[in-house]
Amino acid sequence: MERPRHQGMAKNTCMRWRLPLVCLLWEVAMIVLFGVFVRFNPESDAHWEEEKQKMNLTSDIENDFYFRYPSFQDVHVMIFVGFGFLMVFLKRYGFGAVGFNFLLAAFGIQWALLMQGWFHSFENGKILIGIENLINADFCVGSVCIAFGAILGKTSPIQLLVLTLFQVTLFAVNEYILLNLLHVKDAGGSMTIHTFGAYFGLMVTRILYRPNLEQSKDKQGSVYHSDLFAMIGTLYLWMYWPSFNSAISEHGDAQHRAAINTYCSLAACVLTTVAFSSMLQKKGKLDMVHIQNATLAGGVAVGTSAEMMLTPYGSLIVGFICGIVSTVGYVYLTPFLESRLHIQDTCGIHNLHAMPGLIGGIVGAITAAAATEDVYGTEGLIKAFDFTGQYATRTPSVQGGFQAAGIFVSLLMALAGGALVGAILKLPIWGDPADENCFEDDVYWEVPEDEESDVYRMHDPAKPASP
Amino acid sequence: MERPRHQGMAKNTCMRWRLPLVCLLWEVAMIVLFGVFVRFNPESDAHWEEEKQKMNLTSDIENDFYFRYPSFQDVHVMIFVGFGFLMVFLKRYGFGAVGFNFLLAAFGIQWALLMQGWFHSFENGKILIGIENLINADFCVGSVCIAFGAILGKTSPIQLLVLTLFQVTLFAVNEYILLNLLHVKDAGGSMTIHTFGAYFGLMVTRILYRPNLEQSKDKQGSVYHSDLFAMIGTLYLWMYWPSFNSAISEHGDAQHRAAINTYCSLAACVLTTVAFSSMLQKKGKLDMVHIQNATLAGGVAVGTSAEMMLTPYGSLIVGFICGIVSTVGYVYLTPFLESRLHIQDTCGIHNLHAMPGLIGGIVGAITAAAATEDVYGTEGLIKAFDFTGQYATRTPSVQGGFQAAGIFVSLLMALAGGALVGAILKLPIWGDPADENCFEDDVYWEVPEDEESDVYRMHDPAKPASP
Amino acid sequence: MERPRHQGMAKNTCMRWRLPLVCLLWEVAMIVLFGVFVRFNPESDAHWEEEKQKMNLTSDIENDFYFRYPSFQDVHVMIFVGFGFLMVFLKRYGFGAVGFNFLLAAFGIQWALLMQGWFHSFENGKILIGIENLINADFCVGSVCIAFGAILGKTSPIQLLVLTLFQVTLFAVNEYILLNLLHVKDAGGSMTIHTFGAYFGLMVTRILYRPNLEQSKDKQGSVYHSDLFAMIGTLYLWMYWPSFNSAISEHGDAQHRAAINTYCSLAACVLTTVAFSSMLQKKGKLDMVHIQNATLAGGVAVGTSAEMMLTPYGSLIVGFICGIVSTVGYVYLTPFLESRLHIQDTCGIHNLHAMPGLIGGIVGAITAAAATEDVYGTEGLIKAFDFTGQYATRTPSVQGGFQAAGIFVSLLMALAGGALVGAILKLPIWGDPADENCFEDDVYWEVPEDEESDVYRMHDPAKPASP
Repeated sequence: MERPRHQGMAKNTCMRWRLPLVCLLWEVAMIVLFGVFVRFNPESDAHWEEEKQKMNLTSDIENDFYFRYPSFQDVHVMIFVGFGFLMVFLKRYGFGAVGFNFLLAAFGIQWALLMQGWFHSFENGKILIGIENLINADFCVGSVCIAFGAILGKTSPIQLLVLTLFQVTLFAVNEYILLNLLHVKDAGGSMTIHTFGAYFGLMVTRILYRPNLEQSKDKQGSVYHSDLFAMIGTLYLWMYWPSFNSAISEHGDAQHRAAINTYCSLAACVLTTVAFSSMLQKKGKLDMVHIQNATLAGGVAVGTSAEMMLTPYGSLIVGFICGIVSTVGYVYLTPFLESRLHIQDTCGIHNLHAMPGLIGGIVGAITAAAATEDVYGTEGLIKAFDFTGQYATRTPSVQGGFQAAGIFVSLLMALAGGALVGAILKLPIWGDPADENCFEDDVYWEVPEDEESDVYRMHDPAKPASP
Repeated sequence: MERPRHQGMAKNTCMRWRLPLVCLLWEVAMIVLFGVFVRFNPESDAHWEEEKQKMNLTSDIENDFYFRYPSFQDVHVMIFVGFGFLMVFLKRYGFGAVGFNFLLAAFGIQWALLMQGWFHSFENGKILIGIENLINADFCVGSVCIAFGAILGKTSPIQLLVLTLFQVTLFAVNEYILLNLLHVKDAGGSMTIHTFGAYFGLMVTRILYRPNLEQSKDKQGSVYHSDLFAMIGTLYLWMYWPSFNSAISEHGDAQHRAAINTYCSLAACVLTTVAFSSMLQKKGKLDMVHIQNATLAGGVAVGTSAEMMLTPYGSLIVGFICGIVSTVGYVYLTPFLESRLHIQDTCGIHNLHAMPGLIGGIVGAITAAAATEDVYGTEGLIKAFDFTGQYATRTPSVQGGFQAAGIFVSLLMALAGGALVGAILKLPIWGDPADENCFEDDVYWEVPEDEESDVYRMHDPAKPASP
Repeated sequence: MERPRHQGMAKNTCMRWRLPLVCLLWEVAMIVLFGVFVRFNPESDAHWEEEKQKMNLTSDIENDFYFRYPSFQDVHVMIFVGFGFLMVFLKRYGFGAVGFNFLLAAFGIQWALLMQGWFHSFENGKILIGIENLINADFCVGSVCIAFGAILGKTSPIQLLVLTLFQVTLFAVNEYILLNLLHVKDAGGSMTIHTFGAYFGLMVTRILYRPNLEQSKDKQGSVYHSDLFAMIGTLYLWMYWPSFNSAISEHGDAQHRAAINTYCSLAACVLTTVAFSSMLQKKGKLDMVHIQNATLAGGVAVGTSAEMMLTPYGSLIVGFICGIVSTVGYVYLTPFLESRLHIQDTCGIHNLHAMPGLIGGIVGAITAAAATEDVYGTEGLIKAFDFTGQYATRTPSVQGGFQAAGIFVSLLMALAGGALVGAILKLPIWGDPADENCFEDDVYWEVPEDEESDVYRMHDPAKPASP
């Protein structure tokens, strides 16, 4: 079935020993590290009864689990079904899209629990985890799923695991710089997740540039049903994005507000996406690529500011702009990036995550800088930006400056990290596919071949199914 | 690819300027109106800390967000994935089903926030929104999705936006009459959402009657995989319906009870749907149309009464009846409505929403009229029907009468409104498809054509994909 | 279209009167039994206001609804979409997989509410139900869905309903023995749900052995898109499994901990599944069957111990082992069971539920036996294992012994029950399909035939769709 032509002969894509080795060794490493470091935090530990008394809590409902578990599950769906199925649009790469996304995310959340744990939940030599750590691990992996979108169809599963290992590491470092050193707010991750993940992925795909990729160009499109599968991914991302942006916000009004702002931004984004998708096509027909992707840009772009007093109409404006920017990006920028800058961006993450992520960082900086005691209340302002301890004297405008700095840090980390990791992935040992086998499940998956062709005979039982 | 025959030539279905214009102008209008009117309510505003002290709340968990957010997300899934994918059953209209549903719902929730806000959350010149408003906006849009089911495949996206604008407006008026003037209970919307939405849609499709629709009859069926996609919609509607009917019920027992009653009703409904689907077919085979739709009628029919003391066995009885009514409707009534009354009801919403909605209204009236202090407790009865203030002296039997009145008001509003909106949509300016192009994505979407045919060559790489 | 060969002629698969009769009679029985027995429990009854005062609760948020409803909805999705779509992988049995699963689960939850109610929620002659009963009913039905996996494609819908009736009954008895008589902990049901359900189903399929099943072997595979549909089932099971294992755990730390442990176990399981899937295939390619199924074994295997102090690294170890055991099972054990033991296990439930379920029981017994006051705290230990009342003096090691006993009881009940029910299902009155019609929707469903073939003409409108 596989038909090696040109240099394809030279590529050894057999995963039989390499992939199992990496999976097993790394998983053993996880077990050892978890054994040494990871324990339950007070809210998930069996000593909780005593803890409750210490914290003077009267009810189990005060356990953080009940504040965040529903949002956690929504985020979990976004990572595995949302990103997984969004990438199923390719006609022959459905197994790889949803299966490799599954693999890298399952590994990534473990490594993220450790990396983020060392930075944020380390106490007396132990990482103490609870529901918020699970959400953050999913978030971190979200940035890897984004980067995966840029190189979709062009990498081996081992490359994806290597990518995950490094990207999660750098993500945690970047997140630490932003949240702890710069004391920046970024609950929905416009900067830490989207800007970082997208530019990281774009740099990796730039380094891995394949000049002869047009050999598999015919496989780089969708078919009717693969577009419908992709809409499952789109809709779950769209519907649950309010949970994404509110999942780790402060209890109470902040979570509540983040959900409302995101809801509004996403709604507006759909309208302008449809408008520009139709406008930019000669016959005015809608393009599924835009509906599947650009409609989500509004969620990305309020990632930093959703928990702030962005207000519903502010959110509509952000969504309005991002639907346009993203759709225009798909039509004009993606081809330009590929032909001029040699950035082959399979899913167009530049339009869905990179630009809206930057916009999100800027909107966050402005919204923070514009905060006043009048709008937030005295207590509210302190709580919203955590102006306590060493930051007790920080003013909103200074906060805005730090927010802006966070954008640049994320961008730099992403580009430098992506260049490094791209160079590592370029080593000829990872079993990546030949150019003419890109976007093709056959390379790494047992594809039901005879059965596939059998569909054509479905109602012609005279012919035997397989000889 | 498009092949205009007969009068098809005359139809200009190009959306290039009309659709973008409507989307952009209306979205700008939304931004302006939100800017003038919409603000956060006390539970989502940054002043919540002060509010908590005023309301004497000790914990953030008392924020309405935690009572309703999980239900909100379930309702959100029902509107976008549930309705969207339920309508994907048509073999060539999957993009339109899920994509236009996405578009109209995204616009509709914004307009609903405003319309319902003016009626129910208007304070000092501002609409104050929180999680309950988002749920109500989704509910309102649900009635538009229902109406969309009747005209599925026969309208342009602009017509759908116009429909949404008017239907949301009338929905809000009707809801105001029922909930505020008649003081009727309708938490799951048997009357306000289903009866109103369905008869509205049926009237619209009656006005838009296409005598020559049989020209596209071959496209009005399903294919194997489109039926499986539709089952995704069905199951999400079925599973989350307990959330739908309980989402805006009173905190505590009412939400709890509404979920249980709905769960029971839906379970019974599946059994009778299967029974009659098999019984009414010559060879006793099951029909996917019934399984996809009639199984949901039990959820519709306890929409009004689920939060009342309907009791689990009462719910089973309602579900039992509705599975039968709905399935029989699909077999006998839908063809009758089309041939005799010229009501072309693509999805059979008469069987899934109209009749079960009416039954739901009646069950609600009876359940309310039968309420006693013995069953509800003194406090419980007052709380369940909100017999306070000017309604302090209303008795259950009077309440039952008002509930019944609510059915008729909804019916009248739907028929009158549907006639009006149908007439507007009949104007020859909206770019609706010719009869022979109905149920065909090609008209408004870029369909992956070459790729589609490429599937047939999937394992025959010798032939080039596209010339 | 159907082509009866050999003994196929003799089989009467017409469901026209039998299926409706069973559905209607049984549903009427449900209504009568619910009418006599089932009422709301204090938390879902309208007298809740008075109850709150009695229980000294200050807020509606203390209603069990808010502790468990989000988990309930996740479990609900697992039963209907998870199991339903996981079994859609067969190329021609998608309707049966998702549709029959829908039917049996809808009936099963009603019967389970009664059976489990009589054992666990019976007060003063009434079964008082609340959200926890709904979860338990879904759990019980989960074991039937598991058994369905073994006989998928080889039974009539009536057989499935008969199976459900008996299996739910025996499930409730077994559950009563374990939870009440042995006082065993099994929150996620490794023993009661998975071990019991799987061995029950395996015994049934053994009794129903079809020596000539290779006649329909060509239909027992998947096609490309059916594998993608199945991944929807897989992912929802995988993502929501933390909810499954924590849904009925004690409020607070136990629910919290169960979610974390399950999350960890599942993540590790993916890595070893991928490793062994690649390793055991000659060319090192991944097999979708393993990805769809073995990745879930980690969730099964922490079903008993997830709420205990298994710790995150303990969970990783369990997941690590189960991914291997399950994948190896698919490659070597399933063919062996079929050829030597005549156990035809369509979905390979032996690998996904039976073995991991046993492992789960053992892990639970060990974890319980290893519990100490040091790890759990004095109060925590009593609460975790409910060492109160007549069990106040039970020690962890004794508890471990009882846990182990629970495994054997479940196993025995499953094998004996499965043999009995298998014998009943073997009666020639249930309309099961002939060997050559197995795994074929055509037998019990109206399949869109002409439309299916029409796909091939999708862009060739010259040919008429149906003559």
